[in-house]
Amino acid sequence: MGIQATGIRKESDSMGAVEVPADRYWGAQTQRSLHHFNIGGDVMPREVYHAYGVVKRAAAEVNAAAGRMDKTIAEAIVQASKEAANGELDEHFPLCVWQTGSGTQTNMNANEVIANRAIQLLGGEIGSKKPVHPNDHVNMGQSSNDSFPTAMHVAIALELEKSFFPELTKLVKAIEAKAEEWFEVVKIGRTHLQDAVPLTVGQEWSGWAYQLKDAVHRVKEAERGVFELAAGGTAVGTGLNAPKGFSKAIAEKISEITRQPFITAPNKFAALGGLDGMVAVMAALRGVATVLMKIANDTRWLASGPRCGLGELHLPENEPGSSIMPGKVNPTQCEAMIMVCIQVMGLDAAVAIAGSQGNLQLNVTRPLVIMNALHATHLLTDAAKAFREFSVEGTTLNEKRIQHYIDNSLMLVTALAPVVGYDGAAKIAHLGDVEGLSLKEAALKTGLLDEKQFDEHIKPRLMAGDGVEGA
Amino acid sequence: MGIQATGIRKESDSMGAVEVPADRYWGAQTQRSLHHFNIGGDVMPREVYHAYGVVKRAAAEVNAAAGRMDKTIAEAIVQASKEAANGELDEHFPLCVWQTGSGTQTNMNANEVIANRAIQLLGGEIGSKKPVHPNDHVNMGQSSNDSFPTAMHVAIALELEKSFFPELTKLVKAIEAKAEEWFEVVKIGRTHLQDAVPLTVGQEWSGWAYQLKDAVHRVKEAERGVFELAAGGTAVGTGLNAPKGFSKAIAEKISEITRQPFITAPNKFAALGGLDGMVAVMAALRGVATVLMKIANDTRWLASGPRCGLGELHLPENEPGSSIMPGKVNPTQCEAMIMVCIQVMGLDAAVAIAGSQGNLQLNVTRPLVIMNALHATHLLTDAAKAFREFSVEGTTLNEKRIQHYIDNSLMLVTALAPVVGYDGAAKIAHLGDVEGLSLKEAALKTGLLDEKQFDEHIKPRLMAGDGVEGA
Amino acid sequence: MGIQATGIRKESDSMGAVEVPADRYWGAQTQRSLHHFNIGGDVMPREVYHAYGVVKRAAAEVNAAAGRMDKTIAEAIVQASKEAANGELDEHFPLCVWQTGSGTQTNMNANEVIANRAIQLLGGEIGSKKPVHPNDHVNMGQSSNDSFPTAMHVAIALELEKSFFPELTKLVKAIEAKAEEWFEVVKIGRTHLQDAVPLTVGQEWSGWAYQLKDAVHRVKEAERGVFELAAGGTAVGTGLNAPKGFSKAIAEKISEITRQPFITAPNKFAALGGLDGMVAVMAALRGVATVLMKIANDTRWLASGPRCGLGELHLPENEPGSSIMPGKVNPTQCEAMIMVCIQVMGLDAAVAIAGSQGNLQLNVTRPLVIMNALHATHLLTDAAKAFREFSVEGTTLNEKRIQHYIDNSLMLVTALAPVVGYDGAAKIAHLGDVEGLSLKEAALKTGLLDEKQFDEHIKPRLMAGDGVEGA
Amino acid sequence: MGIQATGIRKESDSMGAVEVPADRYWGAQTQRSLHHFNIGGDVMPREVYHAYGVVKRAAAEVNAAAGRMDKTIAEAIVQASKEAANGELDEHFPLCVWQTGSGTQTNMNANEVIANRAIQLLGGEIGSKKPVHPNDHVNMGQSSNDSFPTAMHVAIALELEKSFFPELTKLVKAIEAKAEEWFEVVKIGRTHLQDAVPLTVGQEWSGWAYQLKDAVHRVKEAERGVFELAAGGTAVGTGLNAPKGFSKAIAEKISEITRQPFITAPNKFAALGGLDGMVAVMAALRGVATVLMKIANDTRWLASGPRCGLGELHLPENEPGSSIMPGKVNPTQCEAMIMVCIQVMGLDAAVAIAGSQGNLQLNVTRPLVIMNALHATHLLTDAAKAFREFSVEGTTLNEKRIQHYIDNSLMLVTALAPVVGYDGAAKIAHLGDVEGLSLKEAALKTGLLDEKQFDEHIKPRLMAGDGVEGA
Repeated sequence: MGIQATGIRKESDSMGAVEVPADRYWGAQTQRSLHHFNIGGDVMPREVYHAYGVVKRAAAEVNAAAGRMDKTIAEAIVQASKEAANGELDEHFPLCVWQTGSGTQTNMNANEVIANRAIQLLGGEIGSKKPVHPNDHVNMGQSSNDSFPTAMHVAIALELEKSFFPELTKLVKAIEAKAEEWFEVVKIGRTHLQDAVPLTVGQEWSGWAYQLKDAVHRVKEAERGVFELAAGGTAVGTGLNAPKGFSKAIAEKISEITRQPFITAPNKFAALGGLDGMVAVMAALRGVATVLMKIANDTRWLASGPRCGLGELHLPENEPGSSIMPGKVNPTQCEAMIMVCIQVMGLDAAVAIAGSQGNLQLNVTRPLVIMNALHATHLLTDAAKAFREFSVEGTTLNEKRIQHYIDNSLMLVTALAPVVGYDGAAKIAHLGDVEGLSLKEAALKTGLLDEKQFDEHIKPRLMAGDGVEGA
Repeated sequence: MGIQATGIRKESDSMGAVEVPADRYWGAQTQRSLHHFNIGGDVMPREVYHAYGVVKRAAAEVNAAAGRMDKTIAEAIVQASKEAANGELDEHFPLCVWQTGSGTQTNMNANEVIANRAIQLLGGEIGSKKPVHPNDHVNMGQSSNDSFPTAMHVAIALELEKSFFPELTKLVKAIEAKAEEWFEVVKIGRTHLQDAVPLTVGQEWSGWAYQLKDAVHRVKEAERGVFELAAGGTAVGTGLNAPKGFSKAIAEKISEITRQPFITAPNKFAALGGLDGMVAVMAALRGVATVLMKIANDTRWLASGPRCGLGELHLPENEPGSSIMPGKVNPTQCEAMIMVCIQVMGLDAAVAIAGSQGNLQLNVTRPLVIMNALHATHLLTDAAKAFREFSVEGTTLNEKRIQHYIDNSLMLVTALAPVVGYDGAAKIAHLGDVEGLSLKEAALKTGLLDEKQFDEHIKPRLMAGDGVEGA
Repeated sequence: MGIQATGIRKESDSMGAVEVPADRYWGAQTQRSLHHFNIGGDVMPREVYHAYGVVKRAAAEVNAAAGRMDKTIAEAIVQASKEAANGELDEHFPLCVWQTGSGTQTNMNANEVIANRAIQLLGGEIGSKKPVHPNDHVNMGQSSNDSFPTAMHVAIALELEKSFFPELTKLVKAIEAKAEEWFEVVKIGRTHLQDAVPLTVGQEWSGWAYQLKDAVHRVKEAERGVFELAAGGTAVGTGLNAPKGFSKAIAEKISEITRQPFITAPNKFAALGGLDGMVAVMAALRGVATVLMKIANDTRWLASGPRCGLGELHLPENEPGSSIMPGKVNPTQCEAMIMVCIQVMGLDAAVAIAGSQGNLQLNVTRPLVIMNALHATHLLTDAAKAFREFSVEGTTLNEKRIQHYIDNSLMLVTALAPVVGYDGAAKIAHLGDVEGLSLKEAALKTGLLDEKQFDEHIKPRLMAGDGVEGA
Repeated sequence: MGIQATGIRKESDSMGAVEVPADRYWGAQTQRSLHHFNIGGDVMPREVYHAYGVVKRAAAEVNAAAGRMDKTIAEAIVQASKEAANGELDEHFPLCVWQTGSGTQTNMNANEVIANRAIQLLGGEIGSKKPVHPNDHVNMGQSSNDSFPTAMHVAIALELEKSFFPELTKLVKAIEAKAEEWFEVVKIGRTHLQDAVPLTVGQEWSGWAYQLKDAVHRVKEAERGVFELAAGGTAVGTGLNAPKGFSKAIAEKISEITRQPFITAPNKFAALGGLDGMVAVMAALRGVATVLMKIANDTRWLASGPRCGLGELHLPENEPGSSIMPGKVNPTQCEAMIMVCIQVMGLDAAVAIAGSQGNLQLNVTRPLVIMNALHATHLLTDAAKAFREFSVEGTTLNEKRIQHYIDNSLMLVTALAPVVGYDGAAKIAHLGDVEGLSLKEAALKTGLLDEKQFDEHIKPRLMAGDGVEGA
């Protein structure tokens, strides 16, 4: 693999010839794009090219099986496409995200690189378009308008399956393990940030675990939309220049290659004109972000202190916290997670706007959408890993502090409401607050109940109940 | 129903007595809230109170059946709650949305109104809390922290079922009817706003219909989350002060009353600490908005003109379009729809932020979330109705213009690429463009093919293919 | 004022006759709009009509002064417009926000109502368009396309001046008063939610005051853009059908009437095609929201407890906090403020999208933009008032708790870093933490310094410094 | 420069020793951060480190001048800081954006690299912290909490001045040049996408130029906030451990080094607790994005076609447009610009949320905010350059098409309204539309005016008026 050459090479397209670096597989259209689009430093994510490797391979196999493509050519395309899919050709995909909104230039980059690599495999002259032509062969039966959406869907689905679901599931399990470990440790509840009735530490963590599991499940549900592929719609959705049956055949082939349940999109005009499957996946990722933001926020507040905060949790001390305050340790993993979650919300806002901006037969904001969706996926995946390893798993309890709060709160009075009525219980709490009494002292002082009654009802562990389903 | 009284009445709560209007059922806490929260003119949507009617009725029935509540009291509460659910007590629910973030004041408003109305039904003295106490009876087994989320879920689910799904389905069907009607009318496709290969008008409309149907289906999928009810979690999720089994019993009762598949939420700490079901529904509504925005935009561009635009569609002329340009007719329904869609995107942004801002045992941004979700639902429902009645159903084709474009476009050259190759076809198109030739003239002039070959391949209706699934 | 009639009346426009309620001033186009736009319950804010009163009056005065309009007609229009500006005709402006995106229907509503009211004043027959015609007279020299943006700018500027700046300034001053009152009370600082070095309560509050003052100042700066008026651009910005000099004359007249520095927009094509002044004002309002959200969050965390939170502040007890937990008091004003701030962020998101969606000579998302900008203004104004009256002004300190934290924190060790070096100071803090020692005990135990040195450097009040500008 | 070593080296901090690559200047805390934060592939923008070079140099110069720092040490720090500011040490700054929310690890990275480089310059042993200590010397008088916000402000201000303003100004001028060139070319106006009255091409472009110029000016106004520096606030805003006068001195020094009007922030508690200056700059950048989005959208619609669209403009043909449709040319620069604008809107949404999430003495979402603000700046700068070079400057007119529209539109009837009244003119337009007549034919057929009158009023060029200020 690779081209042993230096200097430049001539490549041409329908607009004429251009010079490209001699050691690169790409052709004229890629080179034109490099010239015209040099914006913001964002390159098209490599997962898109890996997905394109899958798409181009599937197309070649389907075309060859139907006798539309010479088998030798097809085999070379398949080989080159596999190399692209495996990331072996990554350095030949240099284009910027901010290019044509259809991703045409990235499709042509894939066509050109795979064609030249296939030509090389077949002993031809690179740049000659013989015996493998980027449009006529590698792009056979396709348009950018259907192949780019197809590559987008393949890219995000594979990334979700390969990285996101496994890593997020690990985090759910790590939180569940803590919930189990600490299921019997009673602590004060807080609503409106104010002292409330008790629950157990395990119950609190079970809530986080459930929220996260449910949010991840919503991503799984949303994935349904990206399992539908545009391939076979070609330029405007009609499938012009693709043979009858191509839609179904290529979807099946992609499904076979990736072992994921890809199917052909039921309506190709929707598949090209809209980005609805991607918008829905992104919204589901945002749903994960809103949950993780709460978990990270709760964690750092519960760990606030050590002496002037809530102080219920000890987070692992991973690094010195301050360049000026010696001995300070900060909830840095929580902060990184919170920033990641906010960023995902911003990326989602852009995707939703993009999703609304389709015109007629095509939505031309596709590179933005796949960049943001993949970035959000990576951010959440990596942040989930770091948060689990460097925060959740090493978190311990400050049981002394937790017990202190239980012993001192007045809000356990709630358990007396069924005995002395809401208004009576309110009177007790108020007395305790004003006179600085313990709950028991205040309760007895009102005369509304006696010590025996008090002790019978104020049993924090019993107040927290048994499970996670409430009453 | 109603209170025949004038002037003021004394009502009291745990903080003392306050004066309320004598002809209103509400009590002290509602009155305090009116005093403290007078912000922005937004009142809590009435659907929340109707839902509270369902919740309070279900609680009373469950409590009575279990022997925890006197049957006479329960029957009066049930009667008053039914009146609330039917909207008969709407004028007694005056509170602002921007209040306690838990919705406590709205829960107390419901408790107070239902208690006083029940007292009245039982011949008691309004404001006496006898024989029906707002907290001890109407709120029995509940907290605001579980009853408000429950009412939110009931409110949004009923609104979706009652209004949104039926109306959106009508719009889908209206678009599908046009797709069918015009399935054979060939038109030019446009990608990147530039002339592309042909499709049929029906295919174009089928894409809109499919996008919309799919987006509505995603709302239906998201509804799953709001069918899970927090009731039985009480103050922090443990279910303190609610009897064992209450969660399941009240969810079943609510399901029975509403004939919707409500169940008890599997984890009450998640149900109180998070707003994930609502965030997901809102995201799905946003998905509908992004699709409707495209449809409305496409419609108005296709109808642009009449003489200096695309001019393929005639929209109904509902009103004079300009205060200064006589005879102008504008795509006003499209514009209203576009604004509605943008607004839904903004409401969703707020809901997502709100969903991320929970702390510990409670998320206190609930009134905002239910207001925005209901508002988005109403906006999309009403706009779908107006758009269907006053735009879609009355839209007609300018077939002459449509045919003119087919006759003149050069992009049908695409059908020649399999014959003369991509580069050859590009040459033909370029020649036509530069010399102002028709496609046929240009094709023949290049000598790349003869007239017979041309006529065989350039058949616009055939180029558009048969169905909607592409090749 | 008012029409003594019942039943219906015929009104007509260029599309024919329609029936309107006999006791309303509006005409055919308003009635058509009512029929076609019944969406989401949002009516155009009355401030827009009050502003239209100003605009129509100014136009009539300018036209009369130039001899283009009969003085009797002009006087009647001026009188009717003043009534509209004063809110006396509010019930005659019933239209929905979700209408034509140019606000044409609202402009026609204003034209029709003012025309009919002027006809009435002149003893004519309502609906006859004689002697005052809604288009030819009331709309003279105008188009919706320039008069609606003008009314938007007038409406938001007057609302900012009348309500927003005064009320927000009061809140700034209330916070500044607390900053001054508590300037010498030393408290522990917290960064990353973790204990840090001391500051004074007054310094903390001064930071809030400064942030808010600065954010409000940014709104004032942004107001510059809405002081530029589109009037005189008419239909597309060229000023067709308006006389030479009209732009400048009407801007001067509006400035004179409102006593605000309105001027004519330097480029009318920008003024009609864009919404940039409004987008900038909205962004500045969002800036206020982000600041108020921090202040409200800080306040409620500092008031968290009473026994299991930070507990430094006591907020006023305005209402019972819980329907189930007796005696609970919650930071409800903070919560309302936080929700308001989130909502403003959502409204802003919609405005920014709308601002990006102009096409060619007109941006047709204007009703959304003015609704959201006015709503954000009202929300922040009202919430600032409630927050000041019911939270800030009644806040008191828990000085005992504040002192307790100062006495116990280890972070005052920072003051020793210049003496024993960063690493030495870190060692002291670590020892204190691990062995549960006071800072002094830990410091002496390390032998890095003696008691005299310790006492010389650890002086919390001195550590907090003098003012607000840092070192 | 550079370290001639291989393998690893021991570095230590207050938590102990760690191994770092021997050829890198960074120390223990940087290495710890690399271990704990490997998220999403986003590295802290190099502009932040360049700015840190300025900040550390300024601090050393101020400290040395005041006699607090040994001159030899100061000189070495100054030298190393200059290298950092010039980008010569970029490879020694490897940290991820998603780290501590205060940027502490990046501050320590700067401290460590500059200390080791200074040690090297002074002939000491790298990693020995002698004679230059990262905290005691390089960080003297600073905390991350004040130095990171300072570096943020320096970084964004320099980037705006160096790249953004010059490049955006070039784009404004390029548009203005077109406006001037085509000032006399009359074209049809379009409002609501519907034919309207005429304007000139130059007027249309003048509107874009004005919108953009005004939006860029708003960024300049917003820059005021980032010229205020937090330096001297140290850990919580009090300036502890920094000498009296340090705030003012370091701001002056930074101003002197950068030749920008930096001053010390008037309230350091606001400067550390908030991010308001950055939020305002980001909002102003969003304002530029909303304008550029309109310009790009207008451009591509006006260039739509070539045969089935509006077709008034020819955009430069930079690349083949389609992988399947030969000869197609697409408005790719417009599409890239539109995506960039949407992305900026998303980045802004994240920044605003981040700005709202400060707690007590610190907002810990700083790395996100500076990354997004710098990214938005780069995106807009680069996209403005590409859009100018590859689209605006090469755009030409299709004057034939433009004239065709003027000749055919009915909307010039508006000029007749002052002659025959609004209703009369509407009748003429309607007749023309229904019977397919030219405006003149329709006008004469109604008998409402004669040919002479018609010709006198229907003069398109005169209808467009003289300048850009309207009537």
